[in-house]
Order: sequence, then C-alpha cells, then structure tokens
Amino acid sequence: MKRPGLGLIGTGFMGKCHALAYGTVGATFEGLPRPRLAVLCDVEAGHAAATAAAWGFERSSTDWRAVVADPDVDIVSITTPNAVHAEMAIAALEAGKHVHCEKPMAVSLEDAERMAAAAATAAGLTRLGYNYTANPALSHAARLVADGTLGRLVHVRALYDEDYMADPELPWSWRCRRSEAGLGALGDIGCHAVAILTMLAGPIDAVVADMATAHPTRPIAGKPGERGVADNDDVASALLRFASGATGVLTTSRAAHGTKNAIRIELHGTRGTLRFDQERMNELSLFLAEGDEATRGFRTILTAPVHPPYGRFCPAPGHGLGFNDLKVIELADFLAAIAGTRAPAFDFAEGLKVERVIHAVARSADSGAWVTI
Amino acid sequence: MKRPGLGLIGTGFMGKCHALAYGTVGATFEGLPRPRLAVLCDVEAGHAAATAAAWGFERSSTDWRAVVADPDVDIVSITTPNAVHAEMAIAALEAGKHVHCEKPMAVSLEDAERMAAAAATAAGLTRLGYNYTANPALSHAARLVADGTLGRLVHVRALYDEDYMADPELPWSWRCRRSEAGLGALGDIGCHAVAILTMLAGPIDAVVADMATAHPTRPIAGKPGERGVADNDDVASALLRFASGATGVLTTSRAAHGTKNAIRIELHGTRGTLRFDQERMNELSLFLAEGDEATRGFRTILTAPVHPPYGRFCPAPGHGLGFNDLKVIELADFLAAIAGTRAPAFDFAEGLKVERVIHAVARSADSGAWVTI
Amino acid sequence: MKRPGLGLIGTGFMGKCHALAYGTVGATFEGLPRPRLAVLCDVEAGHAAATAAAWGFERSSTDWRAVVADPDVDIVSITTPNAVHAEMAIAALEAGKHVHCEKPMAVSLEDAERMAAAAATAAGLTRLGYNYTANPALSHAARLVADGTLGRLVHVRALYDEDYMADPELPWSWRCRRSEAGLGALGDIGCHAVAILTMLAGPIDAVVADMATAHPTRPIAGKPGERGVADNDDVASALLRFASGATGVLTTSRAAHGTKNAIRIELHGTRGTLRFDQERMNELSLFLAEGDEATRGFRTILTAPVHPPYGRFCPAPGHGLGFNDLKVIELADFLAAIAGTRAPAFDFAEGLKVERVIHAVARSADSGAWVTI
Amino acid sequence: MKRPGLGLIGTGFMGKCHALAYGTVGATFEGLPRPRLAVLCDVEAGHAAATAAAWGFERSSTDWRAVVADPDVDIVSITTPNAVHAEMAIAALEAGKHVHCEKPMAVSLEDAERMAAAAATAAGLTRLGYNYTANPALSHAARLVADGTLGRLVHVRALYDEDYMADPELPWSWRCRRSEAGLGALGDIGCHAVAILTMLAGPIDAVVADMATAHPTRPIAGKPGERGVADNDDVASALLRFASGATGVLTTSRAAHGTKNAIRIELHGTRGTLRFDQERMNELSLFLAEGDEATRGFRTILTAPVHPPYGRFCPAPGHGLGFNDLKVIELADFLAAIAGTRAPAFDFAEGLKVERVIHAVARSADSGAWVTI
Repeated sequence: MKRPGLGLIGTGFMGKCHALAYGTVGATFEGLPRPRLAVLCDVEAGHAAATAAAWGFERSSTDWRAVVADPDVDIVSITTPNAVHAEMAIAALEAGKHVHCEKPMAVSLEDAERMAAAAATAAGLTRLGYNYTANPALSHAARLVADGTLGRLVHVRALYDEDYMADPELPWSWRCRRSEAGLGALGDIGCHAVAILTMLAGPIDAVVADMATAHPTRPIAGKPGERGVADNDDVASALLRFASGATGVLTTSRAAHGTKNAIRIELHGTRGTLRFDQERMNELSLFLAEGDEATRGFRTILTAPVHPPYGRFCPAPGHGLGFNDLKVIELADFLAAIAGTRAPAFDFAEGLKVERVIHAVARSADSGAWVTI
Repeated sequence: MKRPGLGLIGTGFMGKCHALAYGTVGATFEGLPRPRLAVLCDVEAGHAAATAAAWGFERSSTDWRAVVADPDVDIVSITTPNAVHAEMAIAALEAGKHVHCEKPMAVSLEDAERMAAAAATAAGLTRLGYNYTANPALSHAARLVADGTLGRLVHVRALYDEDYMADPELPWSWRCRRSEAGLGALGDIGCHAVAILTMLAGPIDAVVADMATAHPTRPIAGKPGERGVADNDDVASALLRFASGATGVLTTSRAAHGTKNAIRIELHGTRGTLRFDQERMNELSLFLAEGDEATRGFRTILTAPVHPPYGRFCPAPGHGLGFNDLKVIELADFLAAIAGTRAPAFDFAEGLKVERVIHAVARSADSGAWVTI
Repeated sequence: MKRPGLGLIGTGFMGKCHALAYGTVGATFEGLPRPRLAVLCDVEAGHAAATAAAWGFERSSTDWRAVVADPDVDIVSITTPNAVHAEMAIAALEAGKHVHCEKPMAVSLEDAERMAAAAATAAGLTRLGYNYTANPALSHAARLVADGTLGRLVHVRALYDEDYMADPELPWSWRCRRSEAGLGALGDIGCHAVAILTMLAGPIDAVVADMATAHPTRPIAGKPGERGVADNDDVASALLRFASGATGVLTTSRAAHGTKNAIRIELHGTRGTLRFDQERMNELSLFLAEGDEATRGFRTILTAPVHPPYGRFCPAPGHGLGFNDLKVIELADFLAAIAGTRAPAFDFAEGLKVERVIHAVARSADSGAWVTI
Repeated sequence: MKRPGLGLIGTGFMGKCHALAYGTVGATFEGLPRPRLAVLCDVEAGHAAATAAAWGFERSSTDWRAVVADPDVDIVSITTPNAVHAEMAIAALEAGKHVHCEKPMAVSLEDAERMAAAAATAAGLTRLGYNYTANPALSHAARLVADGTLGRLVHVRALYDEDYMADPELPWSWRCRRSEAGLGALGDIGCHAVAILTMLAGPIDAVVADMATAHPTRPIAGKPGERGVADNDDVASALLRFASGATGVLTTSRAAHGTKNAIRIELHGTRGTLRFDQERMNELSLFLAEGDEATRGFRTILTAPVHPPYGRFCPAPGHGLGFNDLKVIELADFLAAIAGTRAPAFDFAEGLKVERVIHAVARSADSGAWVTI
C-alpha cells in the first residue's frame, strides 16, 4: 500500500494537532495507509525548518503554492487562518490533491460555496476539521438516534461556551471586527455545534437569532488609554427548526468565564434523553424511559471498545481519549474514504450546509426575522 | 403578637405544601407571627373535613366565598386550578384579606392584569408562589450579582425541563388544549424560570420565540383507538433582551424524559459565571476570574448558615433544604412583609411582569416576530 | 385516636429539629397520630419559656425529671449532650414512657448497655436518631440489596467526612479530650455510617482500625499563647468483616476541609454497584451489569413517589427532601411502631450493636489487632 | 542529537501504548531526542512482522535476547507478562541499555529487589510504567502539596476500582491463582495507587490490611460444570501510616461493577482538600479554606497550559488529554532523564518502594497484624 504524502500548511495550534495525527494514525489504525510527512509549510523559513525537523517531516517550505503543486504530496492539510482557506483549498483541488481543511471553511459564505463547487468536480476528496463529530461518544449518540433508541427527536439543544475572550481587558485585535474577521463566536466555535447537531438531528431548515458583543471596546495594546471598537459576536443564540419537525436551540459564547471547551448537547426524544459535554468528552449521559421506574436515571456511559473506534486506542474501557485523539479519528475516516473503504463525512458539500446555517443565523440576527435555509 | 388566621383553598399538591408551610413556619422562623390554621376549603365536604383534621386545621368548608368573607381569616391561600385564581384572589382582596396565590397568576393576561389592579388598591398584601426564588442558593446568587462579584451580566440562560408529559401514550386531557388550559410548559413551569431570571438579571424588554407540541394527538382514556388533539406547548424557547443590555435564552419543556425539576440557570458576567440546577437545589456553581489561574475552577458551594435564611432550618452547613422548605421561606417572607419588617417580593405587581413576558413569548411564537414588552 | 404528648428535652440543633418534626409529622403522614407538643425542657427558664412559645409548645420546664414523670407526656425526646442520655432515657423508660433519643446512645459502652437493658424490660418503645437511615434513597438501596438486584455483596465502604474541626486554630474544648468527650469523629458522626452499613449489609463481625488526632494541641480561647491538649480522634478508619462474608472499609474525619455532610456509601455486589452521597441526598447512583453493554453506566436516580415515603412530602418526582424531612420520617416510623403498625427500627437493642462496633474500632485502634464483635 | 533506538518487547495492550508513545513523543515534546522505532519483538514471527510494519518499526524479532543485545537498540521497553520482567530487565541493564519497564516490577518481591540491585550498578537508566503519576493534574496536585497550599497532610486515601473480574461467570484463568499470578487487584492496579500516594504524600511506613476473593471458584472454559479455584485478591484494603505522620486508607477492587479506571485520590490537608478521579482525568477538585466563606466550595480545575506539560499537547485549556497521552509524558520524562535534563522519576529504586508496600499489605492480610516497612 503506497503511503500518501502529506503537505501540511501551518504550524500553529491546529498545525501541530494535524502533524501529531498524521504521524500516529497508521500505528493507531493498523491497516490504514500510513501517511508520509512529506513537507511542512510555514511563511517563516527558519521556523518551518526547525519545526519540520522536530515534528519528523522530510522537509520544509515557505511556499504553499509549491506544496500544493508538489507531486510528492497527495494530501494537502490546511491549518492557516480562515481567510486563506478558500484560495489554498481550491488550488490544491485543482492540482488533484485530497484536501483536509480546518473549520470553518471560510470567512464568507461565497468562499465556502466556491470551495464546495471546486470539490464537486475535483478528483481529490475533501474533509473539514469537525473533529468533535469524530468522538466515539457522539458516534454512539448518532447510533442511538438512528436505531430508534431515543425515539423520535422532539427537541435538541447545543450550548457551546469558551472564555477566550471573556476578559474585558483582553487587548483589541482584528478578530473583534466583523469587517475583518467575519463572525465571532458563531464562526469560530458555533460552527462545531451546528456540525454536531446536523450529524445527530439532521438538516436545519430555519432559524431566528440574536447576537451580541459583550465588550464593545477593548484596550489597544501598547497605546495606553486608547480603545478599539469590537463589533462581532461574543455571544450568539438561535432558535432552530429542523427538517424532521424537531425544534432546537443553539447558543454560543466566547465570553463565558470558566468554560474552556463546553460543548453541551441535548437530545430530547420520545423514548429518552441524551446529554453530552465535550469537557467530559469520554462520557455520554443517557436516560431511557424503560424498565423499573424506581431504578431509572440518567446513566453516565464511559466510552469503551464497544463504542468504535475507541478500541483502536485502548482495549480497556473507560480509560479515556483526549482532544488530539479526535483528530486521529477524523483523519482515519478521511484516509478510509480515500482508500474507498467508507463514505466521506464532513466533506466540503457537508461543510457548506453548516456554513449556510451559520450565515443564516447571522442574517437573522441582523434582520430580526426568521430566515429559511 | 396576634396569630393571623389562615383560610386555605385547595387540598392538592400545592394545598398540602401550603398547609405544611403554614404549620411549621412559626417554629422555623422564631419571632414571626405563628399562623393559625383556621379553615381548609375543598369542594368535597367529607374530604375537606378529613383533611382538615389530618392537617391540623380548626375546621373545614366547601364554600370558598365563605372562607374569603370569614372574619377569622386574615390570609387567604389559593392553591386551586389556575382558571379560578382571579375570581378568588380579587374577592379576597376586596374582603380585605392578604392573598397568597399559587403561580401562574391566571390563564389569561387580562385576568392577571385585573388581579394586579385589585391588589394595587387593596388593604391586603399579595404574594405569588414563586417558591424557587426563595432558595437561599438563589438569594445568594442575587447578592453576587448585586455586589458586583459577577461583574456586569453579559448573557443569561434558563433551561427548565420536566417530563410529566413526555410519555407519548399519556392520555389526553384538557391540559393539552390551548383553548382550555392556555399555555402549556410555558405557563406551568416556564413562568418560574422567568421569575428567577427577572430576580437575578432584571426586567426583560423583548423576546422572539418558538413553541412546539411534541405529541399533537394523545389517546383518549377509556376510548380505545380514539385520540384527542393536543395543541399547546410541550416545548417553548425564546431569545431574550434585558433592559440591562444583556441577552438571554429561555427554553422549557414538559416532554424531556428523565428531567424531574431541572431548572438550570446560567449567568455569564464580566467577572465570573454562575450556574444553578434546582435538581441539586442546595448547590451553587461559581467561577470567578480571579486568583491563581492554575487553581481556578467552577466551585460547588453548598448552602449553609452563611446563606440566610438557611440557618433557620439547620445550624450545620451542607445538610440540605428540601422542596417544601422553599415554601416555608416564601411564606416567612410574606409574613414579614405583612408584619412590615421587610418589603414584599413577588406580589401581584411583580407577578404581572412575569405574566407579560410569558404572554409575549406566546405572541412571538405565533407571529414569528420580536415582541417588545 | 389519642394524640401522644411530647416532652422534648433540649433546645439546641437537634432540639429544634425534633420540635419541627413533631410539629409537622401528622400533616405530612396523614393517618398517624398527631403528637401534642406538651412540654419543652431546657435548663434556663427564660430561654425554655420563650422557645416553647416560638415552637408552639403548650408549656416549658427546667426540670427534666418532672418532664419524664409528667402523666401528660407519652413520648420523651432526648436531645441533650451524650453524657446524660443514659440517665434520662432510663428514667423515662422506668416511668413508662416511649423514648426517642439522639445518637450516639451514650459516651461509654457500659451506659449504652444499661440503656438497652432498660429498654428490654420496659413498656415503652425506643428509637435512636439515626435519621440518615430514614432517607427514601437509602430505603430503596436496602430494597435493592434485599431483592437481589445488586446480587451478593462482595465489598462495602462508608466514608463520612465533615470539616467542623478542620481549622487548626479552632479553640480547644472538652470535645477534643477522650477522657471527657469519649470518641471524636467516630462517636459523633462515624456511628451514623455504621448504622447505615448495618442496615444495608448486615452485622459487622470483626474490625481492625486506626485513629489519629489531626491537631494534637489547640489554642485556648481567651488565653493568648496557651494551648490545650487534644487527643481523641479527628480521623478514624477501619477494615471491616461482615457476618455475610463481605469485607468493608469505614473511614471518617471531622477534619476534612470542604466536606459538610459527606456520607459516602458504596456497595459492590455481584450484579451491580450502588453509590450514595448524603450531600446529594436525593440521588442514588446505581450500576447494573445487565442490558446492552454499550449503554451501561452509573445511573443517577432521583428519589420520587416510587421510593416511599417520598410521596408523603411531594407527589412530584425529583423535587427533593431536606435534612429536616429525614427526622420527620424517622419520627413517623417511631409513631407507627408505637401504633403497632410496623416493627421498630433502630431501637436501643439495634443501637447497641452500632455502639459495639464503634467501641471495637476504638479498641482495635488502641491495640493494633483485629477485634471480634 | 542522536536518535535513540527503541527495542520494544511485547505487542499487547501496553505494547501498542508504548509504540504510540515512542512514535509521537518527539513531535509532541519538540526538543527531545526523537526515538527511532528500531525493532519490535514478539514470540510469533508473523504477528511480529505485521505489527512492526503497521506500527512503523524498522524491523521485527522473535528473540528478546537478541533485541537486548542489539547495538542498534539504546532503550529496551518491556511490556511482557510480569513474570518475565526481571529476567529481561536485568539482561538489558547488563547489556548497557536504558530500560523502560511496565508495572508492576515483578511478581515476587525478590525479583523486584534483584532488578533494583541491577539498576543500581548499571550504566543505563530505568523507568517504570506508572503512567498515571505523569498526569498534569497529579503533577499539579504534587505542587499544591509541596508549596503548602494544602497545608500539612492529615489524612490521604486512594480507592482504585475496576470491574474486569466482576462478572462471576468470567472463566477461570491462571490470573486467579496466587501461586501462579501472585497478587491480584493489589499487584495489577493497586500498585498504581501506591505510586500515586507515595508521589503525593511521601513514604508509607506501616500497614494493616485485609484481602478477599470475591469469587472463590470460576467456571473452566470448555469444561461445562467444572470450576477452578480462585484465591488471589479481588479486593484488598489497607490502613496506612506515612512517615510524615499522616494516616491513610488504600482500597482496591477488580470486582466493582461499573468502575473502569476509577482511581480516586483524596488528600486532606490543614488548609484544604484535594480530590482526583482518573475516570475524569482532566479534572482536579480542590477546596481551599480561604476567602469569603459564602463562596467557598470544591472547585473543578480543568487542566490547561498552566499545568505543564499539558501545553505540549494543546495550547487551549480544558481540551483534555487521553490515556495514551500519559504514556507520552512518562516517556518524555524518561528521555529527559536520559538526556540529563531532569532527574529520573519512578526508576527501579523508587519502584521497589512501591513493591515493598504492596507486599507488606499482602503479608499483613495474611497475618492480621500491622507490618512495618
């Protein structure tokens, strides 16, 4: 089995996460093609070279266009700022590569649509970095929906909070301006929640929404007394209507002190209720309306080998996966899709649906009216 | 100190809860006037008499108008179905009594307005049964808001779920029809959530909402194969804008399996976050963005004598109050207001504000547009 | 049905708890005889009179011997310091009264044995204040053991922690000296844990134990620089062997910061595991090794009307009892035993078994050897 | 920097865990020497070769003695059954290799002593697989002890439960016999708890203990109706005395249904209390007896970059490490010790102390008397 060559663009938070995943996926998922870490790309040459060495890449580059064109590269992984996703992804697809791109797809809906259009006619496959959907706990949740264990879904909720911009004295940056960064919490983390909801409860048809900026000005670093204007969403909330008839609530904040990665999901079905919290990512909380009423309760299920692909990481139950392991599963799924042994998930076509919801939420928040998707 | 005479109308869930509270409040809150259990009123004479004897009432009655007019009665407590609250409360106020009325105030907003108008000119004081707001945990939460510990509130949430109508096979009743029962989950339990939010975060100015009936038909008891139409809200959700500038989310369901009294409140402030869950009613979860970052976390505060009036029940911390104790505190507050030693809380004027929010939510759900209150 | 007259001795923490329970038990448990609050006894006349008035007693007394002899008194409730339990209880039994006595029975095992001997030949019934065993959650736990749901018990644990003496600067008192107060944490709170274990897992046959004083000297209030010697147990731990063949662990501390009433119980059976924590007294955590492995987990059961006698307090599930409600159930059980409608529980004969375990633990801690009971 | 060559012996649960860790440690901990996966050793040639290919090893072997002697191998990692640890480890040390050995050191205390003696005079360094001690949460706990945040430790506890032998119908194996497998739960998992306690609270001086076999016979696979004798410990418990003067409790079971990796640690200090549960391995629960009493509570600290080396895995707080990540940290520590940049931890000398405690527990359980270590 030929080992696919990886060209990784970006060396930040997600860059390292991808590097670790590409390095370990073969040993974790025996039987999958083991990627070769062909080339690591970063704009700064010295950093690129040093990081390539440390992470075990064969070589480094400062020119993403060269990486995308490199015949030694089969998969291009894009972990750069969102604004350049579209250009890189489309170029890579046009060069015949498989493209693994971090979320969100793009800053503008138009770019996301261009990416999906490019993917639709390309030879390569695509995958977006909706790593949380790869969690065996949520895969099991999806099975409990699909096999009817929860009954018909009546109502679902997603609450996704972090606190990375909760501090009012955090200095101003371009990330606070909608004109420069696009959406705030909604684009950065809310899209994960939409991806999870879509996976579990199907397509969202209509939304009505509200957004708010918690801190409308922020101090400017290095300029005592000056403050810059912040105007994209620190908090965004929406009421949802699903194609299935279920209703839902989405609410997300990047200004909720104490929350670090609090993706809380609730599914209310006619036979049971399911809850999940990413901060306790190895647990699923399930209530089933069956059996002796005196012993019913929400049960805390610890993920285990009975929840594939947990067993690839550990044969013992309840020992726990970590954040980085989710990227390994995401990648294994992508490699399997490339190998033709399973259907693609969260490719650009699927990701575009997430983007449409996010942007519908933003439009509704601007207009105050329900928006149909 | 003259002991105020109680006339209690109703012998159901809340009737017993009131009887227990009136019987025990004097011993719990030494120094308050100890109510006399003067008369217990129920439509069925035998049941009224037997229950009066069991609960320690001096006598019983089947005529609520006689109770309301009884010179031996100083406080009329109304625990009857919502549809008759207005008539009884207004009659009692006109007879010069203090009125203690269960929530919601009434089925229609018009009735609630009539009750508030009657209270505004009456000699007697009024109190609504928003017992959850009496929890020392939430009183402490209110202090943490008022004293700035949490900073400015940016965003707040209330999720209130129960499962008393989650079972699709629960037989049809008038409670399922909006034309007969008025609002569903929103009126029955959602009003509690609004009362709590109002207490903690101040007045709500505008809402946009959605409501859904989880089970649009239900079997008719005793008529195999026949089903009745259900059309009021099993689930209701709203986006909220507060006078303070904060945004919020309200979502409530009576069809969420496994939830029994799950009033979950979240306050996101500029200095910290607070969470509360009525199913763990003796706990408050607080995150403060202060001190060594390596030891920050949500702290589970167990209520204790430092959280008045907990100490009236128990001098030892963390020993726990129960659901019925909240009614005792609510009543103690009312008796203190009658005695003139503290300001009234959740009287009919305050309660009307809650009703206005609830009905605005319903109107918005009907129209699809934001509704200003 | 004649209303039994109560003579309550003591007006402290437990005195008030008893007063509240005797005042409310009749209305809570309709059908039981409603006690009359005949006489309240305290050594200080003014306090006794004022408290009797506030709590609704007919009269007060400063002479416990008069109370015990009072023909108007049917039940004597003893909530005084442990050292005088024996004298009062025996006198009351000899006077033909029913005796309700707080735990522990006595400071010395000899006193406890004298009390049990007196009870064995008395006309009156006895009851000890092991209120935690009255919790519907633990009653349900006992049913799950008895009906085989948990299978054969293999191992059980009780951890009971509080922090009322955790502060090293808490002033010295007689409670710190074994010669004056007898046992420390073991006698004060550990006995509750033994009572619960005995109820759930049957008699304890043998123990080996260790005890420690966390703070061997303490400052003397009002005497700067002086410190008094503390030598009874702040922490006590024991390994247990049950008559059933199960093994167990008991560990208790009154110096565990942050724990307020942390009675944690674990039962490991051949079919499942059960956990309980008094700080979340309305929950039971149950794992059953049955059904689909992928949905197994510890389930959090909220107590409800299906867990009698919860429904006496509230017809709605999961609404929660409080600490004071446990005393009401304990009393209801005692009144039912007096009325002959159920067997006595935790009478002096049963309580003596608890004392024997506690004192065996202390003896083993002194000798370092296993002690057979 | 020369890349150290790894010779890994064993391809089971721990074999894969080591392979993943050796493969990823360099990229995770930039700056450390990146090991080369030189040779993978398994008794079965085909399996060895296939696994070596899948895991990215350069070659495979069926001869552990050849691996140990291989000049291309710098570190020998031993993940074979416990009974052969001593022979392999001593041979590797004698060959001048660094030795990374899974816990427990050996089946017999004598073997462990021989291993420690060999290590004492060897050129190579040693490391035992006490991976749980590598958790950033527990490293932070150790800092909170060392810097006095918790005050003087008064009492500590470790409860370690799993359920891999809870099922009474699990077939008999040699693992159930003390004569063949040595200790049961105590040796297999209890040793981890001792390692953690030792790291946090210092050396243990004396123990008294009890052990029990939950299921004294088990069915023999393939022989219907026949049962084999099981006689090593399914459950073991001990009372502990530490050199520091603190007391403690250790209790461990492999027959506790529903527990999967429940290592629960409690430290009771004079200034605060700390709790940890490996099943929620990214959390630390801390109570500090300081600040406003009304806002004190156990705080749930999510591990983050402020808790090194968490940040090596993820720059965002609260995103969570997994079980396999702990092996990476353990290995990084070992590689750093080899590189001379930090002191060794849990080498054979330290590990021997753990073994001495374990075997003292077993001796005490046999004799019924306290055993001094």
